[in-house]
Amino acid sequence: MIDNRSSALQYARDNRTRFTSELVDFLCIPSISTSVDHQPSMKQAAEWLANHLSMLDFSNINIYSTPQHPIVFAQNIVNRKAPTILVYGHYDVQPPDPIDLWTTPPFEPTIRNNNLYARGSSDMKGQIVACLKAIESVKKSGDIPVNIKFIIEGEEEIGSPSMGDFLKSHIDILKSDIALNIDSGMISPDIPTITYALRGLAYFEVRVYGPEHDLHSGIFGGIVHNPAQVLCELISGMHNSNGQITLPGFYDRVRVLNSQERDEFSRLPMDEKYYLEQIKSPGLWGENGYTPIERVTARPTLEVNGLLSGFTGSGSKTVIPSSAMAKISMRLVPDQVPDEVHQMLIKYLSDHAPLTVRWEVIPFQGAPACISQLDTPLAKAFFNALNEVWGVSPILKREGGSIPVVAEMQKYLGLESIISGFGLPNDNIHAPDEKINLPTWYKGIDALIHYIYNLGNL
Amino acid sequence: MIDNRSSALQYARDNRTRFTSELVDFLCIPSISTSVDHQPSMKQAAEWLANHLSMLDFSNINIYSTPQHPIVFAQNIVNRKAPTILVYGHYDVQPPDPIDLWTTPPFEPTIRNNNLYARGSSDMKGQIVACLKAIESVKKSGDIPVNIKFIIEGEEEIGSPSMGDFLKSHIDILKSDIALNIDSGMISPDIPTITYALRGLAYFEVRVYGPEHDLHSGIFGGIVHNPAQVLCELISGMHNSNGQITLPGFYDRVRVLNSQERDEFSRLPMDEKYYLEQIKSPGLWGENGYTPIERVTARPTLEVNGLLSGFTGSGSKTVIPSSAMAKISMRLVPDQVPDEVHQMLIKYLSDHAPLTVRWEVIPFQGAPACISQLDTPLAKAFFNALNEVWGVSPILKREGGSIPVVAEMQKYLGLESIISGFGLPNDNIHAPDEKINLPTWYKGIDALIHYIYNLGNL
Repeated sequence: MIDNRSSALQYARDNRTRFTSELVDFLCIPSISTSVDHQPSMKQAAEWLANHLSMLDFSNINIYSTPQHPIVFAQNIVNRKAPTILVYGHYDVQPPDPIDLWTTPPFEPTIRNNNLYARGSSDMKGQIVACLKAIESVKKSGDIPVNIKFIIEGEEEIGSPSMGDFLKSHIDILKSDIALNIDSGMISPDIPTITYALRGLAYFEVRVYGPEHDLHSGIFGGIVHNPAQVLCELISGMHNSNGQITLPGFYDRVRVLNSQERDEFSRLPMDEKYYLEQIKSPGLWGENGYTPIERVTARPTLEVNGLLSGFTGSGSKTVIPSSAMAKISMRLVPDQVPDEVHQMLIKYLSDHAPLTVRWEVIPFQGAPACISQLDTPLAKAFFNALNEVWGVSPILKREGGSIPVVAEMQKYLGLESIISGFGLPNDNIHAPDEKINLPTWYKGIDALIHYIYNLGNL
Repeated sequence: MIDNRSSALQYARDNRTRFTSELVDFLCIPSISTSVDHQPSMKQAAEWLANHLSMLDFSNINIYSTPQHPIVFAQNIVNRKAPTILVYGHYDVQPPDPIDLWTTPPFEPTIRNNNLYARGSSDMKGQIVACLKAIESVKKSGDIPVNIKFIIEGEEEIGSPSMGDFLKSHIDILKSDIALNIDSGMISPDIPTITYALRGLAYFEVRVYGPEHDLHSGIFGGIVHNPAQVLCELISGMHNSNGQITLPGFYDRVRVLNSQERDEFSRLPMDEKYYLEQIKSPGLWGENGYTPIERVTARPTLEVNGLLSGFTGSGSKTVIPSSAMAKISMRLVPDQVPDEVHQMLIKYLSDHAPLTVRWEVIPFQGAPACISQLDTPLAKAFFNALNEVWGVSPILKREGGSIPVVAEMQKYLGLESIISGFGLPNDNIHAPDEKINLPTWYKGIDALIHYIYNLGNL
């Protein structure tokens, strides 16, 4: 098969402005999966993808409905003997809250200083469009040398609740040689990155109930165990003074980092100073005995993601709240089990909550951590593609985030995932002013073009 | 002077339906002082009062503007030798949040089972209207035997920030023999109550700041000192295991309860069971070594009135919040000083907040506690009025709430206040489904009629 990569790369370069403008169209759709209010936008985003794949001559295009948001499937089979890539993506985005901290509105994409600002620009509509545009570039320059399938869900930001069932029940159409998941990112604009391990997630809402109604703090202050205070005490006890998590048995299954892995970690250019610049806190914090990069990728954590109780408006209201709520989630590492962590949280609360309140735990999502194999030709073809565009060997790293679908593809389809992407650490994903860096995005398109041809040459 | 009390009482009885309907009109006005959005309603409520006082032939009616909400003044001077009562009230109400827990809308007054449900019905528009209707009943039955002045503010629920300055600068027009403050209540429908001591208040907002932006908990979880967690730890440390407050020096000025006071407390029919029925929590809680009634009236407390951080919508969002906020207030007893408590809170946070976060304290309101003299003829006339209507001697008690103006009237005008009122413990003031019990309200009107004539007979 003829390798037309130079003309494909030229095509991509010539069409950057249009590519960007098509990404902007996609980013205008507020496809927020956490809220039922955005159902029409979810449908619109799925249809946008289906139309786009249709324009690229994909076939078997289908928008599968699920209990919540639809899954888009499409395939382009060129040669039964060529390798087949299953490109995974998600078209849903995080809620834009707190919305008043955005410089420009989250769904009115705006370019400033070579960055395109919009909710979903980096996580991960930009990544999906990079892939579509790489395919277009290859296609416009001759034949596509590989088979490509797309599976793009709308529920990643709410824990991919429909994905497992969908994979299980569509094993035949999803059959592929490798999965490509570009929902991860780079450690810096100059260093392409492949992620070989991800943390898992267990997410909960903890509610503490005290008096039947909100009460006047003057009349009743002194006899009520304030549920907001109780919740604070319970949360406060979830870490000890070494920054370790105190849920009973929490570390029992945690795989110990070996010295080789710790040596590799120590070579990454991500020291305390690097992370301080990223987070802009007055100082770092975390589990004693581990470096920052180990703590954010290879060690489990427990975070308070939200707190709500009583009066939170401006000014004062002398109320004893009747209840208090916290969103609490744990990042898991191999070989922790989300359901076991759920039980540990319940055990902790049973052991520590006073009898002066009632409480409940609502589980939202759970996904185990996972580790991938990278020593295969299909994976090396991607490694080389990154190397060709950036001129340096990609960094192989663990990542602290969770991509539940990676574990499920391994479990249900027997598929290894290549986890990479072209987002940067300061892209503000899940936060106000999310952006994608356009020069890096263009390089991403080039790398994906290289990858398609590298696979074709295997 | 002729005592027409029986005809005045008859008039009140005959006009109960109309009295209630006029109270309903007043309750329809959403005069919420905490929010700037309700300025027009505040004005409307002040004008409603001015009109009503005008119909009762009061003179010198004036709506004084303040930096926030206006103060209504009026007087009816009948005889320079007769005693002069200064009736204090407030026309502002608490915010109705959480609004979805109301059975009927807070500003659409509704009668169910002899109770009138509306925000402000008990605290304290109902009390003010009871006073206006008692005066009307006396007036319609002959001459009013006492001089009456009204001062009704619109900022009580936000700590009466303008009241001190107003009192200081209007000493001449406010000159009176005794103040009547019916912003307190009864311990049960059968037991009229006079309050001789009130707790003070010191209210703050504590903010903890961590990273510059909200962060993704997967990417950054493990190195950030989560400000929500830090806030919980700080709040958790504010009480020790004996339920005592740990702010440095907090109890230094607290006046010790003597054995006579503790004996009086022990005679009140308010045991653990009583309070459990009031609050409907799974159990009581509080400072070791004190009974419930002592804890809610004569001991200082610290309450979390509100908590807010991160994502609080439905579902999940894997965010590390950049900041966390708590509303925290202390109920004070003699001889604690609000400004000193502010400094103790700052000292506590300075001592305990980690260097991984920044924090600030915003003070909202402060008022010292106070204790009144009840052995004067002017006070006894009120005691007797309650006795005449209910047929039992009123209970003399301390109250846990704060009425800053009582301390200020003592300080600036040299005026003792009679603190009473016709609200019941289960009136849900400051909470959803606030109500006033109409049979008790009618008795209140009768008692105020008796009081006017009792004063006239002195």
